Amino acid sequence: MSDIFREIDNCVTAPQGFRAGATASGIKSDASIKDLAILASDVPCIAAGTFTTSSTRAAPVIVCQEHLRNGKAQAVIVNSGNANCATGDLGLLNAYRMTEFVARQLQVENKLVLCSSTGIIGRQLPIEKIQAGVDAIELNTDGGNDFAEAIMTTDTRPKRIALEFQVEGRTVRLGGVTKGAGMIYPNMATMLCYLTTDAAVEPGWMKAELHAAVANSFNMISMDGDMSTNDTCILFANGLAGNTPINAQHNEVETFREALRHVTQYLAIEMARDGEGATKLMTVHVRGARHKTDAIKAARSVTLSPLWQCALAGGDPNWGRIVAALGASGCQLEQNSYDIFIGDVQRYLYWRCAGGETRYGCPI
Amino acid sequence: MSDIFREIDNCVTAPQGFRAGATASGIKSDASIKDLAILASDVPCIAAGTFTTSSTRAAPVIVCQEHLRNGKAQAVIVNSGNANCATGDLGLLNAYRMTEFVARQLQVENKLVLCSSTGIIGRQLPIEKIQAGVDAIELNTDGGNDFAEAIMTTDTRPKRIALEFQVEGRTVRLGGVTKGAGMIYPNMATMLCYLTTDAAVEPGWMKAELHAAVANSFNMISMDGDMSTNDTCILFANGLAGNTPINAQHNEVETFREALRHVTQYLAIEMARDGEGATKLMTVHVRGARHKTDAIKAARSVTLSPLWQCALAGGDPNWGRIVAALGASGCQLEQNSYDIFIGDVQRYLYWRCAGGETRYGCPI
Repeated sequence: MSDIFREIDNCVTAPQGFRAGATASGIKSDASIKDLAILASDVPCIAAGTFTTSSTRAAPVIVCQEHLRNGKAQAVIVNSGNANCATGDLGLLNAYRMTEFVARQLQVENKLVLCSSTGIIGRQLPIEKIQAGVDAIELNTDGGNDFAEAIMTTDTRPKRIALEFQVEGRTVRLGGVTKGAGMIYPNMATMLCYLTTDAAVEPGWMKAELHAAVANSFNMISMDGDMSTNDTCILFANGLAGNTPINAQHNEVETFREALRHVTQYLAIEMARDGEGATKLMTVHVRGARHKTDAIKAARSVTLSPLWQCALAGGDPNWGRIVAALGASGCQLEQNSYDIFIGDVQRYLYWRCAGGETRYGCPI
Repeated sequence: MSDIFREIDNCVTAPQGFRAGATASGIKSDASIKDLAILASDVPCIAAGTFTTSSTRAAPVIVCQEHLRNGKAQAVIVNSGNANCATGDLGLLNAYRMTEFVARQLQVENKLVLCSSTGIIGRQLPIEKIQAGVDAIELNTDGGNDFAEAIMTTDTRPKRIALEFQVEGRTVRLGGVTKGAGMIYPNMATMLCYLTTDAAVEPGWMKAELHAAVANSFNMISMDGDMSTNDTCILFANGLAGNTPINAQHNEVETFREALRHVTQYLAIEMARDGEGATKLMTVHVRGARHKTDAIKAARSVTLSPLWQCALAGGDPNWGRIVAALGASGCQLEQNSYDIFIGDVQRYLYWRCAGGETRYGCPI
């Protein structure tokens, strides 16, 4: 990490003016496990989100998208243990009610509250338990870690981070938590991510930056190749650091951009590392691609190949499976003109004789 | 099966004028296992093929595509134990040499001989063993079963079929064998399929029919979602049944079409059923799709979903994973207006109250 950033505690409640809290509301069958959490800013925030592109997106995703239409939000409520997906209109009503409970508690407009759910698909939320849970939650300025814990499903550990840095000589903080993912029973995991900052930002610019950061972090990883119905990533910026709102022309735009890049990539990699049943973390480096889209096709095909995943899990450097995955990827690939490395070891190479037409393929 | 077809023995050597044979040439480490086979017609055939679309396609695929350019072939040589893929120009030379060995033996032009390889990627073929193997193979009119056995990799049983039917009062036969597929060590499996008929056919029409039949059979199944570098399906028609060449205007075109459909779908399903480690066969029925392409997207997404595959393998009717797979499929799907059945049991339904606006989602 660059030395202009300092890593600090309390993740999403590290930035000024953010509080969070969690409770065991009884959604999960083990009543001692925290399964309901709220994150709130003391003042309204510029907010933006990215969401699953699934056509069976869950009710809370629909509510978030609607409430974020004006680019503002002040709080989010999240439950684990139930995805509130494929639950019809009652599910949608329940998602709205979750936001209403919090709005009443915080005395803010309903539209300023967002909601997320993660857990099993196809069951209705126990909405009374959620209502009672909201009443029971206390919000604290060091509640970020409780929040990170309550949104977990089969994650083995919370994933969280906060950075402190300077903009215009003022202290600015950026925090994040995420949960996910993998092949889990009894439910498909969902990627949820919440980011907070006390930086002042320009709304349109922030939205674009969030999309770019997500594209280069969460959208680059894969556990099992299955897109969730509930995937959500939201960034709240409450402006309490008092800097001039950051936009593309701001002198220190690169500092904020780099912090956002670091936080999202750190959380994405931690999520991949903690995938259900994962024993290894695979990273794919593609060099010499014509376009980034080609590089992404190649990398994705390799990470998603069950045959190569098996070889990797078994410690077998069966690079032929990488050849097959690259061939099927749809990327532009010239037969016989690529190299494959596994770690530092070259497994496949090709060369052309300097003097003439003759060409040799050389598997090692 | 329709009663106009009779199932008969000898698969690819059931049609008149086809002979086949196999030998244990020593490509596989267990020298007692048949790993080299030849299928040949007594006379030149109208021939067509469909092949992998991988950009890392193997050398024998390149040779087949070149030799089939004029739509004629008389024989094919197939080895298992080595895919001859990612083997550079030496690999390509070896693929040509395989066809030359057979051409010399049969005293036909090189261009009339096709070749296929299946096995590990990235190793050069032991070409001397193949040359000696070709000399050792005896071709017989009941050699189809030996051929079916020699092309297997980790298949637990050969997949073969032959049908007999009448065209213009003449006996016509159509035979087929296939091998594949699944997640296997030390190699990725490959789908290979050879079809033979003594029907006389019009070349252009036959090619189109083969493509259509493959699209509705082999291209509908999936084992592990990984496309092979070597996939090959070839149809040989030698015309010895003496009928008027079949084309789209032929009175009995539907009989042949139906036979081809039956043979390819039977072989495709048998291949899926025998997938490496498979304990269950999943078939997905999509009803009410706007277009066939949408139905295919939906079905493919469900069959390829690792989460749903796990649920199915574990006997857990976790239909939420089907919801997620459908949502991610890219098919046109109206939220809350689809039903899901697992077997005969409805797991998800949606209805609209007859009288009014109110709608209910109803997970069961």
